[in-house]
Amino acid sequence: MTRTDGRAADELRPVSIICGYTQAPGSALIRMGKTTVLCTASIEEKVPPFLKGKGKGWVTAEYSMLPGSTQPRSQREASRGRQSGRTMEIQRLIGRALRAVVDTGKLGERTIWIDCDVLQADGGTRTAAVTGAYVALREAVHGLLARRMLKTNPLTGSVAAVSVGLVDGEALLDLAYEEDSRAATDMNVVMTDAGQFVEIQGTAEENPFDREMLERFLALAGDGIRRLVEVQQAVSAAPPEQEP
Amino acid sequence: MTRTDGRAADELRPVSIICGYTQAPGSALIRMGKTTVLCTASIEEKVPPFLKGKGKGWVTAEYSMLPGSTQPRSQREASRGRQSGRTMEIQRLIGRALRAVVDTGKLGERTIWIDCDVLQADGGTRTAAVTGAYVALREAVHGLLARRMLKTNPLTGSVAAVSVGLVDGEALLDLAYEEDSRAATDMNVVMTDAGQFVEIQGTAEENPFDREMLERFLALAGDGIRRLVEVQQAVSAAPPEQEP
Amino acid sequence: MTRTDGRAADELRPVSIICGYTQAPGSALIRMGKTTVLCTASIEEKVPPFLKGKGKGWVTAEYSMLPGSTQPRSQREASRGRQSGRTMEIQRLIGRALRAVVDTGKLGERTIWIDCDVLQADGGTRTAAVTGAYVALREAVHGLLARRMLKTNPLTGSVAAVSVGLVDGEALLDLAYEEDSRAATDMNVVMTDAGQFVEIQGTAEENPFDREMLERFLALAGDGIRRLVEVQQAVSAAPPEQEP
Amino acid sequence: MTRTDGRAADELRPVSIICGYTQAPGSALIRMGKTTVLCTASIEEKVPPFLKGKGKGWVTAEYSMLPGSTQPRSQREASRGRQSGRTMEIQRLIGRALRAVVDTGKLGERTIWIDCDVLQADGGTRTAAVTGAYVALREAVHGLLARRMLKTNPLTGSVAAVSVGLVDGEALLDLAYEEDSRAATDMNVVMTDAGQFVEIQGTAEENPFDREMLERFLALAGDGIRRLVEVQQAVSAAPPEQEP
Amino acid sequence: MTRTDGRAADELRPVSIICGYTQAPGSALIRMGKTTVLCTASIEEKVPPFLKGKGKGWVTAEYSMLPGSTQPRSQREASRGRQSGRTMEIQRLIGRALRAVVDTGKLGERTIWIDCDVLQADGGTRTAAVTGAYVALREAVHGLLARRMLKTNPLTGSVAAVSVGLVDGEALLDLAYEEDSRAATDMNVVMTDAGQFVEIQGTAEENPFDREMLERFLALAGDGIRRLVEVQQAVSAAPPEQEP
Amino acid sequence: MTRTDGRAADELRPVSIICGYTQAPGSALIRMGKTTVLCTASIEEKVPPFLKGKGKGWVTAEYSMLPGSTQPRSQREASRGRQSGRTMEIQRLIGRALRAVVDTGKLGERTIWIDCDVLQADGGTRTAAVTGAYVALREAVHGLLARRMLKTNPLTGSVAAVSVGLVDGEALLDLAYEEDSRAATDMNVVMTDAGQFVEIQGTAEENPFDREMLERFLALAGDGIRRLVEVQQAVSAAPPEQEP
Repeated sequence: MTRTDGRAADELRPVSIICGYTQAPGSALIRMGKTTVLCTASIEEKVPPFLKGKGKGWVTAEYSMLPGSTQPRSQREASRGRQSGRTMEIQRLIGRALRAVVDTGKLGERTIWIDCDVLQADGGTRTAAVTGAYVALREAVHGLLARRMLKTNPLTGSVAAVSVGLVDGEALLDLAYEEDSRAATDMNVVMTDAGQFVEIQGTAEENPFDREMLERFLALAGDGIRRLVEVQQAVSAAPPEQEP
Repeated sequence: MTRTDGRAADELRPVSIICGYTQAPGSALIRMGKTTVLCTASIEEKVPPFLKGKGKGWVTAEYSMLPGSTQPRSQREASRGRQSGRTMEIQRLIGRALRAVVDTGKLGERTIWIDCDVLQADGGTRTAAVTGAYVALREAVHGLLARRMLKTNPLTGSVAAVSVGLVDGEALLDLAYEEDSRAATDMNVVMTDAGQFVEIQGTAEENPFDREMLERFLALAGDGIRRLVEVQQAVSAAPPEQEP
Repeated sequence: MTRTDGRAADELRPVSIICGYTQAPGSALIRMGKTTVLCTASIEEKVPPFLKGKGKGWVTAEYSMLPGSTQPRSQREASRGRQSGRTMEIQRLIGRALRAVVDTGKLGERTIWIDCDVLQADGGTRTAAVTGAYVALREAVHGLLARRMLKTNPLTGSVAAVSVGLVDGEALLDLAYEEDSRAATDMNVVMTDAGQFVEIQGTAEENPFDREMLERFLALAGDGIRRLVEVQQAVSAAPPEQEP
Repeated sequence: MTRTDGRAADELRPVSIICGYTQAPGSALIRMGKTTVLCTASIEEKVPPFLKGKGKGWVTAEYSMLPGSTQPRSQREASRGRQSGRTMEIQRLIGRALRAVVDTGKLGERTIWIDCDVLQADGGTRTAAVTGAYVALREAVHGLLARRMLKTNPLTGSVAAVSVGLVDGEALLDLAYEEDSRAATDMNVVMTDAGQFVEIQGTAEENPFDREMLERFLALAGDGIRRLVEVQQAVSAAPPEQEP
Repeated sequence: MTRTDGRAADELRPVSIICGYTQAPGSALIRMGKTTVLCTASIEEKVPPFLKGKGKGWVTAEYSMLPGSTQPRSQREASRGRQSGRTMEIQRLIGRALRAVVDTGKLGERTIWIDCDVLQADGGTRTAAVTGAYVALREAVHGLLARRMLKTNPLTGSVAAVSVGLVDGEALLDLAYEEDSRAATDMNVVMTDAGQFVEIQGTAEENPFDREMLERFLALAGDGIRRLVEVQQAVSAAPPEQEP
Repeated sequence: MTRTDGRAADELRPVSIICGYTQAPGSALIRMGKTTVLCTASIEEKVPPFLKGKGKGWVTAEYSMLPGSTQPRSQREASRGRQSGRTMEIQRLIGRALRAVVDTGKLGERTIWIDCDVLQADGGTRTAAVTGAYVALREAVHGLLARRMLKTNPLTGSVAAVSVGLVDGEALLDLAYEEDSRAATDMNVVMTDAGQFVEIQGTAEENPFDREMLERFLALAGDGIRRLVEVQQAVSAAPPEQEP
């Protein structure tokens, strides 16, 4: 089988990440093929009620697709008056993924808000959002370190994410929209730079899958994520010098 | 380590399923320990807009916790005016799990609505809901077969679900609430009676986990689900005689 | 005229109340014929804003029908995003009925939340809810007394409720759904164990009714409520011994 | 006891009704003391879904208090995003009251919308709304008859409403706000011009009441409504000549 | 061209303002032709969060059309669950217009709420609302001065508003609904009694307009507003004597 | 006075427009200084209910600020559950502005949806949105012409918009956020390439302004818009060759 865009089964789409795309404390514009997501990190000097007075911080995420990011256009959630179940599911995933590499006890009583807005959608928006969100979060954290608002780096590692799926009987890495819509099984995997799992979400809408297929999926995802980690590190490798 | 209720690490809580608890076309009251979920299946003779005229049916699920099912009481979503992200995430999971064992092409242009309402919550409500929902769905389908509204059985297998998690360094099956709230990693697994995966959702809120732990989780879950499948089958093993 | 289920005009449906059905501070599962309502009482150690600092407590109720409790299924209010007028009207009635037998000055600055969720609906859900809610409330109050969180019993009596209506020209007690839908006039009556009125709601959707009919309705309701009070008392007659 | 405004216990406040206050098909501005309600009747040439194709019409009501009608100001429901339970309860009462004197089979497949907006509130707004709404409805119906859009008059009688209550141990007719807020028991009664009951809603927020008190309430209400019926008839006594 | 109601192009409709129409701290019932708006001013002894502790007050406005004010009836926003964009746009305009003549530093930490509810709509409701709202605001302010709750008058001038538009090629003052719906360009102008602009909102839905037309519009509006200012002053010319 | 960024009073910020930024039928990324807005045009082959069957098309706009586009972060409207009055006001302005240069009778029964999402906000987002939206609309229309889905060009001209305001006593063109927040008066002007007015919205939150100032504002705005029209034309000057 040949993939629509000529990629090998275990090949990522072209990836680029622009860090500092906007003036938010952290921001990253990530492109994976045509999928384009703007991730920003904003800092609020308070925590949600359930954390008040516990000396810990919080990291939370929101996700949205711009109406024009798909064709045909999708309805604007703000105008419909509520977020869809899909949106909620995705933003909860992004938040959990990021918190898995943050020692919130070192963050101080503040919240880092991650906003992932999809400017153009061609499959894999949630995994691109996780990968880009980490870069925005890292920039925001480095800014807090540089301004001495944090004493120690609360980041315990990095996270990146990728999708895998079974299309026409073949396991493929990093599905584009057209592939995703034909996939019998779809799995999103979030891993750390140390190669550990943060989140595995595998769904067989059509065909239940067996252990062998699961192995194949995890192997493909592991390879993909290793390459995404390299891209993330190339964007900005080291924490900043602190201001004297 | 001893579990709060004295169970072994690979032991399910006491499970019971009462089929036909209400007069809905399908219904099941499932108890796993103190967790109690009422699942009903209702039939609507139409499909959602996106399926109109395609000759296929649909299975969808809604989930809710009664306010008094937890202590302290949780706010009623109908009175707050919207469902939480957690609720949406769970009901989407239940719907996907059930659709994985339904050949919707054999269902006719009708929707089966599955409602899972938690009467008492003590951890594992979403997995209990999946396991009970299948029994309610099966009863509703058998009813349609008996009344000759379906020609052939659209069910391609059964599904059941269970949670596993890492608590105090030990992998445990079927977490109760107190265990779940201490778990470093939590995984919900949905499998068919044929032992295949329908859904895997593993989340490391605190500690990313490695392949070895994943293996341990999947083994525990597989054992648990085999026993749940037996309970489901004991409730009502065979499709009904059709009316002549 | 013979009633669908063979009852006499002044006969209640079979009634049963299970107290302590869940682990909420108070709970009662009430069945009147097929109508089944789960009532729970939860305690919150604060009062609504309008009562803050007044040294008084509050009792409030919420009501809902599970979607599968009716066939055809009714839409879930949480998913529609708001409660219907009927729901609001009913839950306000339940709250008022209970407060009529509570001396809120003896309750302390706390709120008792009563949740009435209809598991199966066959007419008379609001009156069954009042009758069951009182039992759940009583259990919660007894619990507070036993744990010495209350010094004196704030309950000044008990309440129970029943419907009466004019069906095919005959006044009937405790209407089932099929009777209710044919009723020209429908009246819900809430009374104390001392035989006094707490709430009378009579509605002539079709035919205005005269004084004579009103007398007949009140007599029927009074008889029914006397029997319901006996059932309530049989469930749990006396307040608990206080812990020493 | 002397009432705040010097009225006798069985005396209505000064009542006036201006019919045709706006250019809506029916309209009435009713004042009972300071309470002022603008009632309009609008005609829509279709019926709600549940009546489609049944050859019957519908009468429905909506109610609202203008924010400035009370002091302190009450929040605007449109800006809060939902109607309160009290509003829903009241508008359902108004709709039922009016439908009790309409033969909807003679109305044609159209809906008459009754809007009752309180311009100034001083107690008894719901009963004033019912009394005024009937006048607006009658004007709209007479307009349809005059334009030969109706062949026969669908009105089978008139309705009016009044409140009674127990204040400082005395039964009073037509409570003003200050009296209502001190009332131990409050009852709203809707009756026809033939002296029959359409709706009785009695509520004992504090003290349950007995049969004797009920008799007293109904007697007071009956007298009050007779006088309101006279005012309604004085406004416009006869149906219009039909256009030739 | 002759206008529907025979007015000259630069002629206002008959205007009347009744001050003190309700018992709110300020109120004005304004009629411009058939357009009738009830404006009330209510006082709340607190300010919005963004002004807390700044020693300044706030003036804000809400606007609504009663459903029966138009024929066919318009849907009630409270029942639809949200205010339309048009409503929001208008109430923001009214609030800005009033604040332009209030020195909020002299108002104390309180909010004056202006509610403009359209009882009958025939074009120009937003401009009538501004003109009437000023009178209600003035009455409320004078009340605060009389009760010595304000030391100095925070009003720095008066505001009134009127619409102008291009209909069938002719610039017209104070458009009625039928004219407004045919207008190629529509402009709402808010001015002070000193003849200065507070707000200009000109919109060419169909034909862009040039400088010359703008001059004509502003001249017409200026003349109209001068006359409205006279009407406002005639209603109540002077601030009240303060209580000794 | 020197402006923060050293501009002359009548100088625009650096402007750039990238057409075809995404794969939507029309798209433009406009930057005016730091203000960055992504405008897309999507095509839907149906019209709103009020236009059905009239042989005309429709152009409508939606506007939103990404939460991270401001610092501190602004709340996401989709998560709050409704659009603010400001958002509604702005998107109505954009829609009206575009419709003023579209002959909707030539558009066919289709809707062009314009989405303006602010990626970075530094004042003047609504005017940048209008200017960018026109470019996106033009690209979408040219696409319809090229694919022969339109026979004749429905665009009757172009529109662009700019803000002017009075800051520290001086009239300034194209206010940045910091200037806008200090402005006593603020005016947004939308004009065609022919120099005619489409929309004028001038607001004196603090100081009413006179005719002289209005003249100054309109002169500044006219100059600014002429330059914006040039930028718009430079991006893509001519309609495309139609496919043969």
